[in-house]
Amino acid sequence: MKYGARNQLTGKITKIKKGDIMCQVALEIDAPAGMNSVMTVESLEDLGISEGDRVKIVAKAVNVLLVKE
Amino acid sequence: MKYGARNQLTGKITKIKKGDIMCQVALEIDAPAGMNSVMTVESLEDLGISEGDRVKIVAKAVNVLLVKE
Amino acid sequence: MKYGARNQLTGKITKIKKGDIMCQVALEIDAPAGMNSVMTVESLEDLGISEGDRVKIVAKAVNVLLVKE
Amino acid sequence: MKYGARNQLTGKITKIKKGDIMCQVALEIDAPAGMNSVMTVESLEDLGISEGDRVKIVAKAVNVLLVKE
Amino acid sequence: MKYGARNQLTGKITKIKKGDIMCQVALEIDAPAGMNSVMTVESLEDLGISEGDRVKIVAKAVNVLLVKE
Amino acid sequence: MKYGARNQLTGKITKIKKGDIMCQVALEIDAPAGMNSVMTVESLEDLGISEGDRVKIVAKAVNVLLVKE
Repeated sequence: MKYGARNQLTGKITKIKKGDIMCQVALEIDAPAGMNSVMTVESLEDLGISEGDRVKIVAKAVNVLLVKE
Repeated sequence: MKYGARNQLTGKITKIKKGDIMCQVALEIDAPAGMNSVMTVESLEDLGISEGDRVKIVAKAVNVLLVKE
Repeated sequence: MKYGARNQLTGKITKIKKGDIMCQVALEIDAPAGMNSVMTVESLEDLGISEGDRVKIVAKAVNVLLVKE
Repeated sequence: MKYGARNQLTGKITKIKKGDIMCQVALEIDAPAGMNSVMTVESLEDLGISEGDRVKIVAKAVNVLLVKE
Repeated sequence: MKYGARNQLTGKITKIKKGDIMCQVALEIDAPAGMNSVMTVESLEDLGISEGDRVKIVAKAVNVLLVKE
Repeated sequence: MKYGARNQLTGKITKIKKGDIMCQVALEIDAPAGMNSVMTVESLEDLGISEGDRVKIVAKAVNVLLVKE
């Protein structure tokens, strides 16, 4: 099984909250874990970041896909 | 500084690759880390997952935002 | 009317479910239909796919936009 | 293998174009195919659509994930 | 022409930069303009915002769709 | 505080609607404001747009992130 996405983590479900149409699943990520971000070169230059720097990594939960293998 | 997103991790940049318009930034995530996924209740039922289960967590790199605080 | 997106299908609505804030619309797609995916070259190489191969195409419903022309 | 997404199609790759960081994969979708869109109830009401109506379905290629099973 | 999205602005193109696969289009938005954000109730509570508050509104350019009517 | 995104606007919250899992926040954008869209070169060519042209700018509310600085 191979996924065409740069972010492929594994984790354990800690909580599920069901609404009428949508639901929210909280997870604990297995360490160590790597991630990737793709942005415009302009955004990179405005950020002014380079290798070794520490950053905050933000992603909306609607763009996170769970897969049960 | 507060973000309206359920996924807020921290990490260190390990590699930057620049293209003409887009670039790709690889990161090492600080542990421990939690994440959240929002999906339809129908998707949750098809997945058949419950608290304590282990899953794969997939996200496209274009939907990951970096912030330099 | 022209859209700056590679995926432009047509279809018929088969079911609408309304919640408090969000709703879900199910559709039947007109055939034949083509789609496109953009990913990093690294993801493509990990997938190891080439022209003629068969793949699964996954998209979260929140990223699908309906237009009534 | 189960995916937490309402859109799960299958298809055949017809063309791959590689760039420096990103690439684009064109696909032919197997028929028949169903899709789903999640939007706000306000958007649904503005669209003024109901079951049986025909609509255009638009999705940006960056939000389409390919999986090789 | 009706779109199933809460953010529908109009504007003038000020710059186009073409790469190999992707391109970037800069725009000047017509005023006045309104926007909408959908998030989890948990995120809203963490933000601690209420009507009348001023906030920053962030969106990645890959999730912005242009339409030529 | 720097964000790796091409769209960074400011605005005032005009309305908050809370559901069970998700909520919707309406905003009034400060003028003047600029935005950016990233798409494939193929989409740009199909759109047939050039600098100075006027276009519609569409974004789903789930892909808009609010930040309280």
